[in-house]
Amino acid sequence: MDSAIFSNADSRSDDSLNRVAIIGASGYGGLQSIRLLMEHPFFKVTFLGGNRSVGMRWNDLCPFLPLQQNQVIENPDPELISKNADFAILSLPNGLASKLVPKLLDKNVRVLDLSADYRYRSLDQWKNVYVKEASLYSRRDHDLCAQAIYGLPEWNGSQISTARLVSSPGCFPTASLLPLLPFLKQGLIDTDGLIIDAKTGTSGGGRKPKESLLFSEVSEGISPYGVIGHRHTSEIEQLSTQVAGHKIQVQFTPHLIPMVRGILATVYGKLRDPGLTADDCMTVLETFYRNHPNIGVLSVGKYPSTKWVRQTNKALLSVQVDSRTGQLVLMCTIDNLMKGQAGQGIQNLNLMAGLPQETGLPLVSFYP
Amino acid sequence: MDSAIFSNADSRSDDSLNRVAIIGASGYGGLQSIRLLMEHPFFKVTFLGGNRSVGMRWNDLCPFLPLQQNQVIENPDPELISKNADFAILSLPNGLASKLVPKLLDKNVRVLDLSADYRYRSLDQWKNVYVKEASLYSRRDHDLCAQAIYGLPEWNGSQISTARLVSSPGCFPTASLLPLLPFLKQGLIDTDGLIIDAKTGTSGGGRKPKESLLFSEVSEGISPYGVIGHRHTSEIEQLSTQVAGHKIQVQFTPHLIPMVRGILATVYGKLRDPGLTADDCMTVLETFYRNHPNIGVLSVGKYPSTKWVRQTNKALLSVQVDSRTGQLVLMCTIDNLMKGQAGQGIQNLNLMAGLPQETGLPLVSFYP
Amino acid sequence: MDSAIFSNADSRSDDSLNRVAIIGASGYGGLQSIRLLMEHPFFKVTFLGGNRSVGMRWNDLCPFLPLQQNQVIENPDPELISKNADFAILSLPNGLASKLVPKLLDKNVRVLDLSADYRYRSLDQWKNVYVKEASLYSRRDHDLCAQAIYGLPEWNGSQISTARLVSSPGCFPTASLLPLLPFLKQGLIDTDGLIIDAKTGTSGGGRKPKESLLFSEVSEGISPYGVIGHRHTSEIEQLSTQVAGHKIQVQFTPHLIPMVRGILATVYGKLRDPGLTADDCMTVLETFYRNHPNIGVLSVGKYPSTKWVRQTNKALLSVQVDSRTGQLVLMCTIDNLMKGQAGQGIQNLNLMAGLPQETGLPLVSFYP
Amino acid sequence: MDSAIFSNADSRSDDSLNRVAIIGASGYGGLQSIRLLMEHPFFKVTFLGGNRSVGMRWNDLCPFLPLQQNQVIENPDPELISKNADFAILSLPNGLASKLVPKLLDKNVRVLDLSADYRYRSLDQWKNVYVKEASLYSRRDHDLCAQAIYGLPEWNGSQISTARLVSSPGCFPTASLLPLLPFLKQGLIDTDGLIIDAKTGTSGGGRKPKESLLFSEVSEGISPYGVIGHRHTSEIEQLSTQVAGHKIQVQFTPHLIPMVRGILATVYGKLRDPGLTADDCMTVLETFYRNHPNIGVLSVGKYPSTKWVRQTNKALLSVQVDSRTGQLVLMCTIDNLMKGQAGQGIQNLNLMAGLPQETGLPLVSFYP
Repeated sequence: MDSAIFSNADSRSDDSLNRVAIIGASGYGGLQSIRLLMEHPFFKVTFLGGNRSVGMRWNDLCPFLPLQQNQVIENPDPELISKNADFAILSLPNGLASKLVPKLLDKNVRVLDLSADYRYRSLDQWKNVYVKEASLYSRRDHDLCAQAIYGLPEWNGSQISTARLVSSPGCFPTASLLPLLPFLKQGLIDTDGLIIDAKTGTSGGGRKPKESLLFSEVSEGISPYGVIGHRHTSEIEQLSTQVAGHKIQVQFTPHLIPMVRGILATVYGKLRDPGLTADDCMTVLETFYRNHPNIGVLSVGKYPSTKWVRQTNKALLSVQVDSRTGQLVLMCTIDNLMKGQAGQGIQNLNLMAGLPQETGLPLVSFYP
Repeated sequence: MDSAIFSNADSRSDDSLNRVAIIGASGYGGLQSIRLLMEHPFFKVTFLGGNRSVGMRWNDLCPFLPLQQNQVIENPDPELISKNADFAILSLPNGLASKLVPKLLDKNVRVLDLSADYRYRSLDQWKNVYVKEASLYSRRDHDLCAQAIYGLPEWNGSQISTARLVSSPGCFPTASLLPLLPFLKQGLIDTDGLIIDAKTGTSGGGRKPKESLLFSEVSEGISPYGVIGHRHTSEIEQLSTQVAGHKIQVQFTPHLIPMVRGILATVYGKLRDPGLTADDCMTVLETFYRNHPNIGVLSVGKYPSTKWVRQTNKALLSVQVDSRTGQLVLMCTIDNLMKGQAGQGIQNLNLMAGLPQETGLPLVSFYP
Repeated sequence: MDSAIFSNADSRSDDSLNRVAIIGASGYGGLQSIRLLMEHPFFKVTFLGGNRSVGMRWNDLCPFLPLQQNQVIENPDPELISKNADFAILSLPNGLASKLVPKLLDKNVRVLDLSADYRYRSLDQWKNVYVKEASLYSRRDHDLCAQAIYGLPEWNGSQISTARLVSSPGCFPTASLLPLLPFLKQGLIDTDGLIIDAKTGTSGGGRKPKESLLFSEVSEGISPYGVIGHRHTSEIEQLSTQVAGHKIQVQFTPHLIPMVRGILATVYGKLRDPGLTADDCMTVLETFYRNHPNIGVLSVGKYPSTKWVRQTNKALLSVQVDSRTGQLVLMCTIDNLMKGQAGQGIQNLNLMAGLPQETGLPLVSFYP
Repeated sequence: MDSAIFSNADSRSDDSLNRVAIIGASGYGGLQSIRLLMEHPFFKVTFLGGNRSVGMRWNDLCPFLPLQQNQVIENPDPELISKNADFAILSLPNGLASKLVPKLLDKNVRVLDLSADYRYRSLDQWKNVYVKEASLYSRRDHDLCAQAIYGLPEWNGSQISTARLVSSPGCFPTASLLPLLPFLKQGLIDTDGLIIDAKTGTSGGGRKPKESLLFSEVSEGISPYGVIGHRHTSEIEQLSTQVAGHKIQVQFTPHLIPMVRGILATVYGKLRDPGLTADDCMTVLETFYRNHPNIGVLSVGKYPSTKWVRQTNKALLSVQVDSRTGQLVLMCTIDNLMKGQAGQGIQNLNLMAGLPQETGLPLVSFYP
C-alpha cells in the first residue's frame, strides 16, 4: 500500500520539515497524530515510541495506516528521542507522562502532552483530582506544572507559541469552555447554577479493552456516568475562574453515546440581561472567534451535529435564548479525538513552530 | 410461522378476553401494541385498522409479527370497530385522532389515545401548541379535552380506571415527570431554573420516512433539536404546575441519539434544603413509587442505561446530589415505545379493565 | 426493583419446578439463561456459579436483571451444585467445562453444556480443533464425548430427551445446519462446492473485553475473520456428513457485523435437479420443520432479517433458486445468544425434562 | 465558517483550474464530489445544479459543507452549464441522466455520469435491466451507449483519458470486479459456480427517504435483498465476460449492513490449479495492481475492514486459498461513496484531464 495521500506529497523538501516523535503511537491519540502528520506540510514523524509493541514494524501493527518508512516501534528513551526529534507528542496514560516530560525538556525537546499531567497550575490540585495516579507515580515537579501552558489555542495562543511544554486540554473541557468562556469573559451570565450536560462517543475511553466499552454493551443504549465528580469538572472550573476573574463552579454530567467520535456539550446558564436575544449572543461568539478558523458559529436556529465535525479539527458553536425563562442554551460539537485531543495537539504544535494554527488540519467533514 | 409465544398461549379462554381494536396498526405504536397484546392474559386483538394498507392481510405486511387470525386491515369505521371491540387503541398522527374519538365514545368503545390530541385540559392550548395540526383539522371538542384523563398511571391511576377516554402522555413528558413530580409535590426544589436535558432514540420519530431519520444521517452523530420550543415542554409544565400547585416553567432540550429505542431524561434543579443527601432523595423516590411495579429506583451511585429497560415497560430512576453546588440531578430511562408510548397504553388499558396495572407487561430486559 | 414479569408469576407452585444451576452466570450465555428461566413455567434458578464474582450478591453485579432471591454467587462446587439443582447449564470457556462435567454427572446432575467441549463424538478431533485449549486442559474423557448428544433439537430430539449430557451446538453451526440439512438428507444438492457465508453480531465474541470487540473498533465497519480455518467448520461438517451419509466439506467464512445480536448464514449449493423451483425447495423446508415451532419458513421472495428474530428462539429460513445458474441460495437468521446459544440450551432442557421443546421460549420479536 | 482545509488552499491559481459542474449536488454522490473538489489542486466547482432546491444558497442547504462562493443552486440547463464548466459530474436518478447527457456533449462539456444509464454497451440491455426506468424515459441513444467508456480506471484507463462520456461503475461491480478480474484474465479459476456475497452500508441506497433505510429499521439487523436478480449482476457479468473472453455468469447476493459507508465483497471461485497457494494468488493481485495507487493488496492472513478504507478512494484486496477444498476466497473493501461512486468519479475526471489518477484523492483513512 502506498501512503501518499496527495499526488504532490513527495514534492515537499524533507529537510525543511520539523521532526516529531510520537510516544504512545498505537492508541487512538497516537493514531490520529500520525495520520494528521502524514499530510502535514511542515512536520514529519521521525520516531515512534511505544510500550507493548516495542520492536514491531509499524505497518504490521497498523496495516490500515501504512507509513512509507515503516518504522520500528522503539522504547521511549529520552536520549534517543532527542536525537531524532525536535518535538514530542505524548499520548500516554495519566501519570506516566510526568516521568518522561522533565527528561525530554532537559534535552531541549519541546513537548506537547495529551495527558492530564500538566493541565493544572498546581501539582497539589492534580494530586487531589488524580488520586489513583498520584499514588502510583510520585511527583515533585511543581515548577513544571506552574510553567506548562494550557493548550487551548483560541485563548492562550501567544503563550503557546513560546512554550517548551504545552498541556492539551481534556476533550470535555474543550467542548465546554469554547462556548462558555466568551460569556464569562463579558460577564453576561449568572455564574451560579451553570449546567453542562455533555455527550461523548466511545473513543474518548481509549483503545484499551474494557467491558463497558464493548460494542455489545454500548450499542443501543445511553447512560450517564461520573455524575457529580467527573475529573474534567475541575479543569473546566480552573480556566472559567481565570477568565471570569472570580470563582466559578459548574455542574458537569457526561453521558456515553453509541457512536465512536464526537462530543456535544449543551451548556445552560441564566442571562444577566434578560433583553439579550439569540442574535446578540451569536454576535458575542462570532466576535470572539472571528480570527479563529478552527471555530465555526452557526446561525440562530441551526444546531450542530457531531457528524458535521467528525474527523475535523473544527468546533461548531450555536446559541439559543429562551425569552420565557431567561435561559441561555449554548451548544458545541467537536470530534473528541481531533479538536478534543490530537487535532488540537497539532494546532498547538503549529503555534509552537510559528505556523498558522490551522496548518494541515482538516476543517470540513465528509458527510454522511 | 407460528405466533404462539408460550406453550400455554392457547389454553386461555378466548371468550373471557377483552376485545381490542388497534387503529394505526403498522406504525411503531401499533406494532408494539399488537406484540404486547399477543401474550396478554386478558386482552385480544380483534380489529386492525389502517389507512394505506387497507385490504392487505396482516402477515403479508408484517411477516415478522405473524398473527394467528391473519386479519385483513380495515378502514377505521366507528360502526365496525364498535361491533368488534370493547376498547380501541389509537396510534394516529396528531389531529387525526380527534376526528375518530368522539364517534367511538358515542358507540361505547372506550378509547386509549396515543396521540397528543387530548393531552391538554384546554383545547385552546392544544391549538396554540399544535398549530399546524389545528389548521388541518377543525376541532370543537372542548368538553372531551376537559374530560379526558392524562394517562400517567402512577399519578392518575384512580381516574384512569373509570375513564372513557385516556390520553397517553408523550414519551419525553413520561421520562421527565416521573423523577421530577415527587420533588415538586414535596416542595423540595427551587421551581425556578429547572433544566431537562433529554436524549431519545430514533423510533420516537415514527416509521414514516424522513431524511433526518435515515440511518445514513443518524448513525455516528448526535445533535440537539427543537431547542426552546419543543411541544412536549407545555405538556411537562401542565402536570408539573398541577402537582406543584403553582406555575412551573422548565427548560427542555431534546437530543437525537443513534439508537432505536430509549429515552434518558437528565433533570437538574436546585435543592431548597442544602442538607438533603442523595440517600434522602432516593428515599423520596422510593416512597412515592413503592407500590408501582413499573417504576424502579436504583441505589445511589448506580446510573440507569436505556438498555436496561429496552423492550420493557419499566422506568428506572436514579438520583444524585452535588453538595458543592446544591444541585439535584435526576435521571430516568424508559423505552420510548413502551413506557413512553404503547406499553404505558396497555398499562392504562389494564387499569381501565380493572386489572393490576402491570398485567402482561415485560419489566425486565434481555441484556445485552 | 421488582423482578416479576407477569402478574401471575408468583402463582406457580415453586415445589413443582425443576431446579437449575447456572455456572458462568454473568457472561452473555449465563445472563440469557437466567433471563429466560425467570419466566419459565417449569424451571427455576436455584444456584449461581461464577469465578471472579464469587461472594457477590447477584443484584449488585447485575442491577438490570434483578432476582427476587438475590442469590450470592458461589464457587461451582459439584457437591454443592448437586444438592441444589437437578440440571446444570454450563456457560464456561472451552476446555474448562470438561473439568466439571464428569463430576456433575457422577452426582446425577444432568448437564447442558454451552461450550464446545462435547460437540465432537471424538475427543481426538476436539484436540485437533481446539489445540490451545487441549494444551491447557488435559482430557481423557473419550467415553463422555462419545455419549454426549449434540443438542440440535430439530434433528436429535429423541436422543436429547433421555440424555444425561447434552452439548449445545455453536451459533454458526446452528444457523448453517438448519437450512442445509434437509437438502443434504434428501440428496438434492451437489455436496461439492458448498459455500457458507456467515455474518455475526458482536455478542458471539463474549463479554470478556477484547480490543477487536470495542465499540470504537466495530462500529461502522465489516470484515471477514477466520477465513479458511474457523473452528465451527468441522462442527458443521460433522453433522452434515452424518446426515448426508458421506463425507461433506464446506467453505465457511464468518464476518463481524456492527450489531449486538444475530447471525445470518447465506448458504450456496448447486441443485442436482435443475428443474427444482424455489417453491419446491420451500416445500422441502416446510415439510421437514412442520412440527417444529422454533423454525419458521418464509414464503419465496421474503428474506429474513436478524432483527425479526432478535431476542427470540426462532430460526427464520428462506430459500431462493437461480434458474440461470442452477444455484440454490439458502438463508437463515437466528439470535446468536438465543437459538444460537442459551435459548437452544433451554429448548434442550425442555426436552430433557419431558416438556414441549418451545416451553417458555419467546418466538416473536419486538420490532423495531 | 471557513471552507479552507489547508493553509495553502488559497495559493493556487484559480484560472488554471478546470471548471466542474455538479448536477444533483445535495444527494450523497453530489456531496462527496463537492467535498473532494474543495481541496483538489486542479479542479474547482463552478456550477451547482439541482431540482427541489433550485434558488437556494448552498450554505443554507448544507451548513456542514460550506462553500466560499456560497453558490445558488440552479436548474441544470445545458446552455448555462456549458458556459460555466468544462466538465460535468451527473449524480442523478437512473434514466434522468440520459435526458441531459446528449445535450451536454453537444455543447462540448465532457461528462462523468454516476448513474447506470451508460454502463452497458447496448441500450437494449439497459432497457432489459432497468425496466421501470425504461418505461419512464424513452431513449434512442444507442450510439452514445456504444461510445461511452466504462469508468473502471484500473482496467480502462487509456480509453477514459480521451473519452467525452465516462460512465462510472456501480458500487457493487467495483468491489466485485477489482479482485476477480485478474484471475479471470489469467484463466486461473473455474468460471462456473462463481459466488459473490456482498455487504453494503446504507448510503448506497441514497438520501431520498425510504422506510427500509430508516435508522429504526436498519440498526441491529442484517438481511439479504435482491437475491437472484439484483441489477448489478449484469454489470459484473458484462466486464467479466469481456476480460475472460467468454461468457461469465455469477451468483450475486447483496446484504444490507447497519453502517453508513462501505462495501465488502467476498468472492468464491474454484482454482483450476489446486497447487496454487495464497501467496501465489496474492502475487497475481500485486502484479496487476502494482502501478495503481488506489488499490492496496494485503499480505496473506490480513483481512480488510471497510473501516480501513472509509472516506478514502482506496480498494483493499486480500486473498486466501483453502487447500482442502480448492476454493479461492477473494475479499475487497471499498467506501461505496468514494471508490464505489464519487471518488472513482474524480479518479476518472483526473484521467480525462490528463492528471495522475490519484490526484486529490484521500487514500488513507482516519481510524477509528
